Amino acid sequence: MCRWLAYSGSPIRLEELLVKRDRSLIDQSLHSRLGATTTNGDGFGVGWYDDAGAPRLYRSTHPAWNDRNLRELAAGVSSPLFFAHIRASTGTAIQETNTHPFRHGPWLWMHNGLIREFARMRRELLLAVDDSLFTSIEGTTDSEAMFFLALTFGLEDDPVSAVEKMVGLVEETGRNHGVADPLQMTIATTDGRTVWAFRYSSEGASRSLYFSTRLDALKAVHPELEQLAGLSDETRVVVSEPLGDLAGAWNEVPESHVGIVQPGEDELRPFAPRR
Amino acid sequence: MCRWLAYSGSPIRLEELLVKRDRSLIDQSLHSRLGATTTNGDGFGVGWYDDAGAPRLYRSTHPAWNDRNLRELAAGVSSPLFFAHIRASTGTAIQETNTHPFRHGPWLWMHNGLIREFARMRRELLLAVDDSLFTSIEGTTDSEAMFFLALTFGLEDDPVSAVEKMVGLVEETGRNHGVADPLQMTIATTDGRTVWAFRYSSEGASRSLYFSTRLDALKAVHPELEQLAGLSDETRVVVSEPLGDLAGAWNEVPESHVGIVQPGEDELRPFAPRR
Amino acid sequence: MCRWLAYSGSPIRLEELLVKRDRSLIDQSLHSRLGATTTNGDGFGVGWYDDAGAPRLYRSTHPAWNDRNLRELAAGVSSPLFFAHIRASTGTAIQETNTHPFRHGPWLWMHNGLIREFARMRRELLLAVDDSLFTSIEGTTDSEAMFFLALTFGLEDDPVSAVEKMVGLVEETGRNHGVADPLQMTIATTDGRTVWAFRYSSEGASRSLYFSTRLDALKAVHPELEQLAGLSDETRVVVSEPLGDLAGAWNEVPESHVGIVQPGEDELRPFAPRR
Amino acid sequence: MCRWLAYSGSPIRLEELLVKRDRSLIDQSLHSRLGATTTNGDGFGVGWYDDAGAPRLYRSTHPAWNDRNLRELAAGVSSPLFFAHIRASTGTAIQETNTHPFRHGPWLWMHNGLIREFARMRRELLLAVDDSLFTSIEGTTDSEAMFFLALTFGLEDDPVSAVEKMVGLVEETGRNHGVADPLQMTIATTDGRTVWAFRYSSEGASRSLYFSTRLDALKAVHPELEQLAGLSDETRVVVSEPLGDLAGAWNEVPESHVGIVQPGEDELRPFAPRR
Repeated sequence: MCRWLAYSGSPIRLEELLVKRDRSLIDQSLHSRLGATTTNGDGFGVGWYDDAGAPRLYRSTHPAWNDRNLRELAAGVSSPLFFAHIRASTGTAIQETNTHPFRHGPWLWMHNGLIREFARMRRELLLAVDDSLFTSIEGTTDSEAMFFLALTFGLEDDPVSAVEKMVGLVEETGRNHGVADPLQMTIATTDGRTVWAFRYSSEGASRSLYFSTRLDALKAVHPELEQLAGLSDETRVVVSEPLGDLAGAWNEVPESHVGIVQPGEDELRPFAPRR
Repeated sequence: MCRWLAYSGSPIRLEELLVKRDRSLIDQSLHSRLGATTTNGDGFGVGWYDDAGAPRLYRSTHPAWNDRNLRELAAGVSSPLFFAHIRASTGTAIQETNTHPFRHGPWLWMHNGLIREFARMRRELLLAVDDSLFTSIEGTTDSEAMFFLALTFGLEDDPVSAVEKMVGLVEETGRNHGVADPLQMTIATTDGRTVWAFRYSSEGASRSLYFSTRLDALKAVHPELEQLAGLSDETRVVVSEPLGDLAGAWNEVPESHVGIVQPGEDELRPFAPRR
Repeated sequence: MCRWLAYSGSPIRLEELLVKRDRSLIDQSLHSRLGATTTNGDGFGVGWYDDAGAPRLYRSTHPAWNDRNLRELAAGVSSPLFFAHIRASTGTAIQETNTHPFRHGPWLWMHNGLIREFARMRRELLLAVDDSLFTSIEGTTDSEAMFFLALTFGLEDDPVSAVEKMVGLVEETGRNHGVADPLQMTIATTDGRTVWAFRYSSEGASRSLYFSTRLDALKAVHPELEQLAGLSDETRVVVSEPLGDLAGAWNEVPESHVGIVQPGEDELRPFAPRR
Repeated sequence: MCRWLAYSGSPIRLEELLVKRDRSLIDQSLHSRLGATTTNGDGFGVGWYDDAGAPRLYRSTHPAWNDRNLRELAAGVSSPLFFAHIRASTGTAIQETNTHPFRHGPWLWMHNGLIREFARMRRELLLAVDDSLFTSIEGTTDSEAMFFLALTFGLEDDPVSAVEKMVGLVEETGRNHGVADPLQMTIATTDGRTVWAFRYSSEGASRSLYFSTRLDALKAVHPELEQLAGLSDETRVVVSEPLGDLAGAWNEVPESHVGIVQPGEDELRPFAPRR
């Protein structure tokens, strides 16, 4: 399917996580270890918040591993909060409007997984999108439809509840169409301050999702790692699969949970669909 | 907006009309004389029927004038019926799924013009598309929506009636939304045997559309033109603007009319929206 | 590195070998079994001879597996002789002018392998290209340089000798620069009638190369295979790795040999560099 | 041919000059007033110095006017020194390695114009490039060849002298090949601190080139313009054609001159080829 990464913390150059690391996201585009597909070469996207706090996108239909502009951008741009996503299409067209992250106002959204038999449910799900939001849908993916459904259900006010309702609708619609296990997802969304990361699937066997250990704990265990020195204790990374093999650095998000990365103490809560 | 060309007749290499002619379609992509915009550089598409009668597409987001693959294809492929379209976007994304011609089964469809304030009407118009067809919509243009509405209204059985009903729906929906003069269009569609070319606009001032003089008449006037010799008398070209300046070669399609290019006598009929 | 395929025989649709087969070339772009790299996603190219015997190219920087235009073309075009190549860059830029096949007059050329430390030898090798040919070099690959060196050494008159001289020059230049084992190659070239397929490497451990069994022999062993019925006995395929697993269908080209597919009896000869 | 823009001064978002202005560079890509061609749709490039002073590139083969990533980047990135270039190819391939600016170490280079009959002189000019630099040539344009010749002649030590020698070589080589008026150029180059802008042609009728009036003078004449308030007095823009119509804002670089934008007083000096 796909691989993604969400970063929140001390401003760093994007290349630190996208390029310069063993098992970086760009490495994963060619050789994913944990993905449903090993190659994620159907385009990629990066979303970052600039120095005025506005979300910016760079999305391309080329494979991440051979895109020079991506390397330039990742080397030249620093940000305290960014998303990156590499795509393996499950059938929808390879075009920029189908690459993640998706954006609406200050919000970003990205997804790994799929709505099974989406073609059969697409019209019904799109009909549930609020009229004022509908015209902003530019692509044809299940992932973007899920974003606009979540926006319809109040993402901007109560993200966890909105995603629960979106998932509830997909489960119900799937049931009505006789689709077994309609939903498989890990999702990240942010308003530019807080990051919400969801792990859920109808069958209770969701795609992998990891969050990094708090940096103060990690620095205590690995005082030798200089690259950690400049990063604030609250710096956090959420990823489809670990970057590198540092012992103690990565923790699995439990099945059917949402992690919330925010100023102050982060949270990990159970997550369940809702109607 | 856009420029397009429809050819039906003796099999010829596509390059004869796309490349090798003064004021060829590729010339028009850079310097249109009659278009609403002079540059049509937002992608292009070619649809042709192959030797088994199946419709094939080559669509790209690059400008037609600098695409080498287009020149190779146009030189290497012959066909008795082909469509070509160069795009100037009216705002929707530059992506292959938004380039013409659009295809459904054996049918091709292309459009020059626009639905005014389409963003406001998009959801309502898409809702009118038949459920079984909806999932085949891959892009976000007004042009593709018009195609799937025409299919919903029976394009495959009675093309003129189906397009009249599609136009009627757009006019009515525009009226309900308070849009003055909602529709501007020249459209070509074909099932691989017959070509229908429509010229219509709400305001009665439609984009230009021309059809070529019957070849027997043209040969009589220009016996010196060797390149006409090999072409059957029924060979016909319909274009947004004339290719070349040959006297007597081009005739304007009248306002609110549909031209039908078919085996035997071609037809020209008045066209009006219908509910 | 790369994977390639050369077909010569009864005219068939390109998709028969590029798409429709288990372990087709498009399958190999995502999952090569025998390649130095498993993913060949850095662009692709197809060269075919059209009904007038002229070579046509379709080359793209997108991965073959997700390019819709490639599938359309492969379905719509038939040819008695075509080349196809999927690329895994060894460092040079991803651009159409670096994708194979390369063309000069009626000749096509494609390569799997590399000149080791080509950057150090590039200027010296390019200097050996004939002045009249130099300006036709459009890309920056070792593969294209090898083509223009072979042309300089008489490819159009005596292909085997010209390639032997080209290889001799590369070996000598490598030696002068202290490069161990400078050359690794399988190469196919054609003038539109005959196909020459070379397997060679400095170290005597060349990339894999296979040719198909003569069809009369194959039909005798597999009378049940209907898809073979329409193909002439002289039909032949040369490939980097076998398409499918049919017993008896594929034979390895021996190390340091050239195979010649031509009207009448095909040939297999030893091959050695020459100065 | 092309249009370009060089900015040096108070850090601003790139979009201020590329997008947000009447007759911005993106406007000029579709409708140039002074260019040899009105449409500059064969790709574009942006080079900027990031907050660590390193040059970064974003180059694309799509037209600037419809590239969303360019708008995102231009909105999200600020820089005290940047180059932007929109291309109209004079025949060489449309590929990223042929788009400007070109980069070598901390240097950027861009060009409007052409070497006439470059194909005939290409080999000889490339042979004059220093061996250590040759392998960095990635494209096939006259513009890039001129850059590497200037580097060969000492661009990094004495830019004016190096460009004079490069021009001298091109003039001489043209003469030897019987090419009348071999060179037409406006060129900008920078090391990240100083910008050199050259205007020269063999025939003494060079492409247009303008530099902006010093901001203290401009502020004195137009005290009402708030957008000037935040910019330092030394801020300077050099362009192929003026952005906007502000009286007193733009001054033509005289024929056969080089302008030097640098800390302290800027300079304008005569320029002549040298051997």
